[in-house]
Amino acid sequence: MTRISESTVRRLSHYYRVLEEVAAEGKRMISSHLLAEREGITSAQVRKDLSYFGSFGRRGLGYNVEHLRDEIRAILGLERRWRVAVVGAGHIGSALLAYRGFSEQGFDVVAVYDTDPERVGRDQGGLTVRHASQLSAKDGFEIGVIATPVRAAQDVADALVAAGARGILNFAPRKLRVPAGVALRTVDMTMEFESLSFALTQPRATRRRRARE
Amino acid sequence: MTRISESTVRRLSHYYRVLEEVAAEGKRMISSHLLAEREGITSAQVRKDLSYFGSFGRRGLGYNVEHLRDEIRAILGLERRWRVAVVGAGHIGSALLAYRGFSEQGFDVVAVYDTDPERVGRDQGGLTVRHASQLSAKDGFEIGVIATPVRAAQDVADALVAAGARGILNFAPRKLRVPAGVALRTVDMTMEFESLSFALTQPRATRRRRARE
Repeated sequence: MTRISESTVRRLSHYYRVLEEVAAEGKRMISSHLLAEREGITSAQVRKDLSYFGSFGRRGLGYNVEHLRDEIRAILGLERRWRVAVVGAGHIGSALLAYRGFSEQGFDVVAVYDTDPERVGRDQGGLTVRHASQLSAKDGFEIGVIATPVRAAQDVADALVAAGARGILNFAPRKLRVPAGVALRTVDMTMEFESLSFALTQPRATRRRRARE
Repeated sequence: MTRISESTVRRLSHYYRVLEEVAAEGKRMISSHLLAEREGITSAQVRKDLSYFGSFGRRGLGYNVEHLRDEIRAILGLERRWRVAVVGAGHIGSALLAYRGFSEQGFDVVAVYDTDPERVGRDQGGLTVRHASQLSAKDGFEIGVIATPVRAAQDVADALVAAGARGILNFAPRKLRVPAGVALRTVDMTMEFESLSFALTQPRATRRRRARE
């Protein structure tokens, strides 16, 4: 399979949301033009993104909404449920535990860890916060979330990998080292702010993007 | 100016961090090779990214660390301070208010709003939470953060724009409509999880990315 860019994967997530909405509205077919319009990109881009994975549409008829939704769900790995461990029960960890949307999309938080004695033993979103030293493969999670202070992030990443995590979502603003077989995504909020200050400082360099967003 | 992709802006943020670190270590020069190595990309990519903005390095000598750091700081709009209003004093809003890193990079939260009577009037990170209906241009902010439930997000975006926001960072998992002159960035955490489930489901399609991360 061709390597798929991160941007394509993000657009697949977007298409999936649009298809869910359109299916809920009772529509049976959708054109690449309409899928593109809702996302503010070109219909050629939609067709290109989908062509990596197969031939889903019919010229002049468009895509069958439910079929394409199910195909993208499978491509994104959302046909199954994923077990998630959250390390760090502070603001970010609590936000994740409080947000029902994750469970609706198939992500179940099965364990929460912290090292703060004030947090360990407490209830968080229906789970008891456990001490991070108890992190182990017994929890059977595939995805680990790092929502700890920066200084702890690399140790937590190592512990998550040792406990069997195959994917890590990192909220600490630091590049982490993980083995080649482990997928790592980082959400760096300062970077998001910097992307805005860039756009406000260099409006001509970002005009098209802004119009597309 | 050529349009600069979102990926380039993200890499500029990364280079900026590396340059700050390297400057703190007392190094005077850095090669594009070393800048690339720290970021796990090619040195050609580094040179290409920087070439959009001018000619900073010297063949065989590399880049002057402090000079390049200052240039990128200016390009990213970090030479000045930005005033930020946060709407929504729940978990995400609190995480933003608690994180000192934003202020270190020049982003000052100057106002916090909510509509929950339990939150309005309380102290949050040194600011008094005000009712969202009081959101006005008098606060003089340039950037607005939407950390509200999904159903309120579009109304809050409209109110932020009316109050003079030129940039919006949206944490609600919904596409928002803003006028063409307003920059919008969305942090969709479900999408980050989906990017991981994609990587775990289609390992061959993401192998190179994983190795680079």
